[in-house]
Amino acid sequence: MTERITSLQNPQVKLWRGLNKSHAQRVESGLFLAEGEHMAGEAVKAQKARALLIEDSAREKFRTLADAAKGASVYYLADHVMAALCDAKTPQGVIAVCDMPGENALLPESASLLVALDGVQDPGNVGTVIRTMDAAGYHCLLMDDKTADPYGPKALRASMGGVFRIPVLRCADLPGQLRALAQDGYDIVAGDLHGEPFYQRRKAKDKLCVVIGNEGQGVSPAVFAESTLRLKLPMVGGAESLNAAVAGAIMMYDFLREKAGY
Amino acid sequence: MTERITSLQNPQVKLWRGLNKSHAQRVESGLFLAEGEHMAGEAVKAQKARALLIEDSAREKFRTLADAAKGASVYYLADHVMAALCDAKTPQGVIAVCDMPGENALLPESASLLVALDGVQDPGNVGTVIRTMDAAGYHCLLMDDKTADPYGPKALRASMGGVFRIPVLRCADLPGQLRALAQDGYDIVAGDLHGEPFYQRRKAKDKLCVVIGNEGQGVSPAVFAESTLRLKLPMVGGAESLNAAVAGAIMMYDFLREKAGY
Repeated sequence: MTERITSLQNPQVKLWRGLNKSHAQRVESGLFLAEGEHMAGEAVKAQKARALLIEDSAREKFRTLADAAKGASVYYLADHVMAALCDAKTPQGVIAVCDMPGENALLPESASLLVALDGVQDPGNVGTVIRTMDAAGYHCLLMDDKTADPYGPKALRASMGGVFRIPVLRCADLPGQLRALAQDGYDIVAGDLHGEPFYQRRKAKDKLCVVIGNEGQGVSPAVFAESTLRLKLPMVGGAESLNAAVAGAIMMYDFLREKAGY
Repeated sequence: MTERITSLQNPQVKLWRGLNKSHAQRVESGLFLAEGEHMAGEAVKAQKARALLIEDSAREKFRTLADAAKGASVYYLADHVMAALCDAKTPQGVIAVCDMPGENALLPESASLLVALDGVQDPGNVGTVIRTMDAAGYHCLLMDDKTADPYGPKALRASMGGVFRIPVLRCADLPGQLRALAQDGYDIVAGDLHGEPFYQRRKAKDKLCVVIGNEGQGVSPAVFAESTLRLKLPMVGGAESLNAAVAGAIMMYDFLREKAGY
């Protein structure tokens, strides 16, 4: 199905405009927007695109993508309509409207490498963590409801398509979820200024979950109480802390190293 | 010396407004602005504040800071003047006007752990790298002239005060500088998709420089040609690459681990 849209008053356009602006509207509709050639391409590849919005003047450029988006409706938008939908400063002529994964996803049985976000507020950090998980081969992301939405435009850009491959589990009760994981044999790893020196730690269990805390406050007390491995990264210079996504990445990769036996 | 300023037409105010907006104006004046309680406090502690700008309604709050800023002029600004100067969405009532380090700084003799930025374009990445260096105890940052300015507002915020402790060396000829370092016994470490697996690498030399390349293109050919250790971080998931600041941090910390013998 294809359709051409030229008016900002079109009800579909009104719905789509809300998706970039508001988490509430994403939740209500169950949809989010993947902007630009790279992200829309990832959405189509992952078969997550429900509709493809293409700027009139870019029809030729995205013909192959439109053909590949089987089962998705294709809309051609007047250039000013596309510009109104885009969050990016330089619109790239294409947007995929995607289904947001449900709130009630289950942890995949085989997931042994997890990350949990505990009140991470910066959407760029959330997206960067997802990108790092996607590179390091981590299996599933847990997040509490104070963490920034992974499906907002900034987080999506930073994730570089990782959101289409990493399942996200929203946890109304993150401490409870982590307790259940610990009982199931997972190590729950938390950064801790008074913890064991990171590089002299005991070997982690086969299954583990790296917790990343809030940018200012760190890991919350309720989550910290469930941690089974409390580690302090070396701070030998003048800084008091690392960026949350950076600290998480250093830990994620070092556990890969440990598991590979280097 | 203290002075009260109530007009946006004040010539000093016009100068300061330019500092947050334009790299050229920072270079011309040799000054940059450190905004907010944390950054201004770091500037005063590092004795880099030439002037302290305090919002009228926050005089009491920053009295101790003003007393500590010995040798700096203190200006009290009408609230609307402060608001016009601030880059942050929520102004915090204080700004330090700081001397920017000269372009002709020399590499400290004792500097054995270096980072080089090769066309890193995102100011947030530049600041995050500086913060990580400051945590990991790296000594000096080299950068080419295509890299984003570390003294712009976004980079400063991400550095969390690291710019006041990490010397920055601007290199008109970064490949030449790295060649000289290699001749002086440094390992020049570059990420490389066809490189040696990162965790199975040979031991690095005592002195090393971690190169971080452009977000899209990676390390430039001229810089790559000077590298002595070409390494590939594991990419076991679906992502093709890591965020530049994240990849740099993983390498920086793993060299710390190697040097500590863990």
